[in-house]
Amino acid sequence: MADATPAARLVPEEGRVGSGTVPTTVEGDLPDGLLEAFDAYERALAADDQAALAAAFESTATVMRADAGGLLVGHDAITAFRGRRGSGPVRRVVECHVRVVDADTALVVSVNAAASGGRGVVTQLWRRESGAGSRGARPWRIASAQVQASPPAIDRRVWRVVGEPLVPGSRAGDATGTAPPALSGETVAVKDLFAVAGHAIGAGVPARLAGATPESRHAAAVQHLLDAGADLRGIAQTDEFAYSIAGRNSAYGTPPNPAVPGAISGGSTSGPAAAVALGQASIGLGTDTGGSLRVPASYQGLWGLRTTHGAVDRAGLLPLAPSFDTVGWLTRDVDTLRRAAEASLPPADQVSVESSYVVDPALLSPVMPEVRAEFGRAVDEATAAGRMRRPEQVVLGDVAQLFELFRVLQAFEAWQSDGGWITSHPGELAPDVASRFAFGATISPRRAEEARVALGHERRRLESLLDGRVLLLPSASSAAPPLGATPAEVDAVRSATLGLTCVAGVLGAPAVSAPVLEVPLASGRSAPVGLCLVGPRGADLFLLDLAATWAT
Amino acid sequence: MADATPAARLVPEEGRVGSGTVPTTVEGDLPDGLLEAFDAYERALAADDQAALAAAFESTATVMRADAGGLLVGHDAITAFRGRRGSGPVRRVVECHVRVVDADTALVVSVNAAASGGRGVVTQLWRRESGAGSRGARPWRIASAQVQASPPAIDRRVWRVVGEPLVPGSRAGDATGTAPPALSGETVAVKDLFAVAGHAIGAGVPARLAGATPESRHAAAVQHLLDAGADLRGIAQTDEFAYSIAGRNSAYGTPPNPAVPGAISGGSTSGPAAAVALGQASIGLGTDTGGSLRVPASYQGLWGLRTTHGAVDRAGLLPLAPSFDTVGWLTRDVDTLRRAAEASLPPADQVSVESSYVVDPALLSPVMPEVRAEFGRAVDEATAAGRMRRPEQVVLGDVAQLFELFRVLQAFEAWQSDGGWITSHPGELAPDVASRFAFGATISPRRAEEARVALGHERRRLESLLDGRVLLLPSASSAAPPLGATPAEVDAVRSATLGLTCVAGVLGAPAVSAPVLEVPLASGRSAPVGLCLVGPRGADLFLLDLAATWAT
Repeated sequence: MADATPAARLVPEEGRVGSGTVPTTVEGDLPDGLLEAFDAYERALAADDQAALAAAFESTATVMRADAGGLLVGHDAITAFRGRRGSGPVRRVVECHVRVVDADTALVVSVNAAASGGRGVVTQLWRRESGAGSRGARPWRIASAQVQASPPAIDRRVWRVVGEPLVPGSRAGDATGTAPPALSGETVAVKDLFAVAGHAIGAGVPARLAGATPESRHAAAVQHLLDAGADLRGIAQTDEFAYSIAGRNSAYGTPPNPAVPGAISGGSTSGPAAAVALGQASIGLGTDTGGSLRVPASYQGLWGLRTTHGAVDRAGLLPLAPSFDTVGWLTRDVDTLRRAAEASLPPADQVSVESSYVVDPALLSPVMPEVRAEFGRAVDEATAAGRMRRPEQVVLGDVAQLFELFRVLQAFEAWQSDGGWITSHPGELAPDVASRFAFGATISPRRAEEARVALGHERRRLESLLDGRVLLLPSASSAAPPLGATPAEVDAVRSATLGLTCVAGVLGAPAVSAPVLEVPLASGRSAPVGLCLVGPRGADLFLLDLAATWAT
Repeated sequence: MADATPAARLVPEEGRVGSGTVPTTVEGDLPDGLLEAFDAYERALAADDQAALAAAFESTATVMRADAGGLLVGHDAITAFRGRRGSGPVRRVVECHVRVVDADTALVVSVNAAASGGRGVVTQLWRRESGAGSRGARPWRIASAQVQASPPAIDRRVWRVVGEPLVPGSRAGDATGTAPPALSGETVAVKDLFAVAGHAIGAGVPARLAGATPESRHAAAVQHLLDAGADLRGIAQTDEFAYSIAGRNSAYGTPPNPAVPGAISGGSTSGPAAAVALGQASIGLGTDTGGSLRVPASYQGLWGLRTTHGAVDRAGLLPLAPSFDTVGWLTRDVDTLRRAAEASLPPADQVSVESSYVVDPALLSPVMPEVRAEFGRAVDEATAAGRMRRPEQVVLGDVAQLFELFRVLQAFEAWQSDGGWITSHPGELAPDVASRFAFGATISPRRAEEARVALGHERRRLESLLDGRVLLLPSASSAAPPLGATPAEVDAVRSATLGLTCVAGVLGAPAVSAPVLEVPLASGRSAPVGLCLVGPRGADLFLLDLAATWAT
């Protein structure tokens, strides 16, 4: 603290926002108009003047803005972000440090005090617009900005409760007492569908949480991880009643997707996925009914395992559609995923199978072209490298029909699970989730039973067709859609993706999503898509070992 | 997301850290040596090469580095930070955007993937060193950097548990049903000494937490706030067993002080103070035995009220020294503080007094000169402005002797409170806290009783001397000391401050710390110091109203 900044002077605390900022320190000759532009920007923020804010940034494809959500490149991306955010922070500049580069370029680093408490820091590179005309007529604009806001206590988009730790794992080693527990040092984000002793289950719906009583014991899947030495970091968000694959909770917001700034997280295991991708937990404990683990894994570049239906005890898990509900995990690396699975799956139930792959080209038809191309490239490359034999082609048949049967039985069971609560709490759910439950309410027990019988036939037919082999397909039909996607766009992506993911759902089969594919975005950056391996029932650990050979 | 960045190219994922970075986008002609300097910096980070990291920044008093902890100005401040932090993050650059200003200046914005998950963004202004010599011999250095790391799930320096909310407050309005609850919309950071139902009390000591059982009901002081409609945001950190005024917990770290980046938080109500200053809660619920609310309020520019001894029921509060322990609150504004106090203090116990002030110049002798000067200035200004009559001078007598009596009885009682646990858990406390308890263990019941009797005499003598008037003094002897202060420096500040704060402790009197004083730092920036008003017992609300007249 022995620094001695010359010419330091604090802006008067009583100064109006964006009015006559006095620089705290200046290096170089302060160019005309710079501070006026700086002040005008702060005024535009205070007034939530979207047009002025947009105009303050250079209108180029290379202009940049970064914050805790990541880096946005290009004026369109920044404007879209601002539109989503709504009004900006109410803040007052308390320090302003100017580093003049030349008469037309300066770096301004400012410290602000937020009206809601805490301090922020903003670094801006300002440039005078080039071109003809007198200097005075050339406005100052921001070429690049990095914004540090005072962080919240808890990111409510990701978490409902967090602790240091929330629940400590077992510190007892293995039977010999020599090795530490298998999951020692790991931290778990528990999807808010599992019982955590002392906490109520919220299921992503605040009104449900308010009426729920604290659980008296941990869910079986939670206890497995604690017994293996993992700490619970916290209870993480889910789509409402887990009935979505988007991750857009209407009460808590959409968790960030650090792999694709400005894109949705995927769900319904949305909070655990974001927590793991952000490095805030090392294991996400979630569920997968129709894709709720594989989709966020795919969108965020994570490893994910949906286990064989019934392989992990669902005691203490709030059901959505019990005929399809499975337990699983998300991690950043396959080794951690394997240890979580080993700690949770009874070894006696596990089977081993031959490692030959099949693909169904027809499955890929609703998939986005860039995903199809990347999937083909990955398969070709693995074949050419001798990592596997070229997959045989199979014809799974009418997947649209399969999905329809799945959709009907899922909706019927979902209404059995949650219809009572929903009926007595109108207006508490997002429109898309509510409409799916409403569909469930229309399904007669007879229609559900018919779907159940037909699905049984389909399952046996597919099992016979796959014959113990591993089905390779993309985990999702596209990379993560942008946050600004319209409901129609999200719905189209949803349908195409569920056409892929429902296969494992119908089979009750294990499925691994491996972060192997990478597709280009319009921005020139790229985004992850998962490679999905669907194996025979009971081959969870075998499938993980097979998927691990895809890790690079 | 319709931006179209030209020339975008991702750095190969398998690239070694800091090796041959390929820019994702470039504007202008890439100057010689820039990317090599950028890579060398990343290598120095990976190797934790402190000398190389220090050399990468310009060696000036105006060089800057900002992160979530705030802005540091000057090479010394940045180097001190790096020394405190220890080894930096393990990260891999995944995008690198270069904006060339001229042949000797460029902005580099990079995105990195942390080995521990999540992504970070770094904005750096690089400049070639000026001066004679060939261009090649002039190294590139960083003039300014802003670093965004992927945030943790929970800031363990501030919080132990956080929720959205952790416990919801009452939604019932007042008796008429027309007004919302008085603390509706407020969020509380509860010091980890108060019972929160379902959670164990940790008292800032992880080993104590591990052995504690969850509380079955809320502490009375917690319940008061919930009944008035405030939500509990979480359980916040405290110095170990609350036996310190520094805020430096050896297990959880030192909470940030957003008002003075690089300085300690003050304690023992350290976590609630930081939570409120950061805007992560609006009310900090804490305790004050010898200054544990007033000191963090002073260091962080907050409003704080230590209540009359016994005025708020201490049921459910872990005791430190019951003869002195009081309950109180920290807030960013006096109105919120008043509402918290009103919700918690039985109105029948409150008294009103005449509003005349006294000062004791002798009290100010151990105070830092800049605090003494600023205190004098504030008193003069308020007098000159007619906001009060000039305070009468009083002579409180030998405050060092008063503090010694206080210190003895406090240590004796602290050992009664926690000695059993400490004896059976050796080595769990920080040396300074442990030494205070060790002192407590040496005090005989007879010596303690003598101190108690002498303190009773002193209390009556002081009450008679003050005669219902309000004592004005600084809340602390200095601004917040830097994190790098030596134990001897911290101890000197502690002794000087406790000489001020123990007066209210001995009196069992209410004391308000108002964020009114501002003292200059060597860096040219400034730091807050509280103005303290000590009033007669039972005059808590009156004192708050009086203090509010100092708010600007």
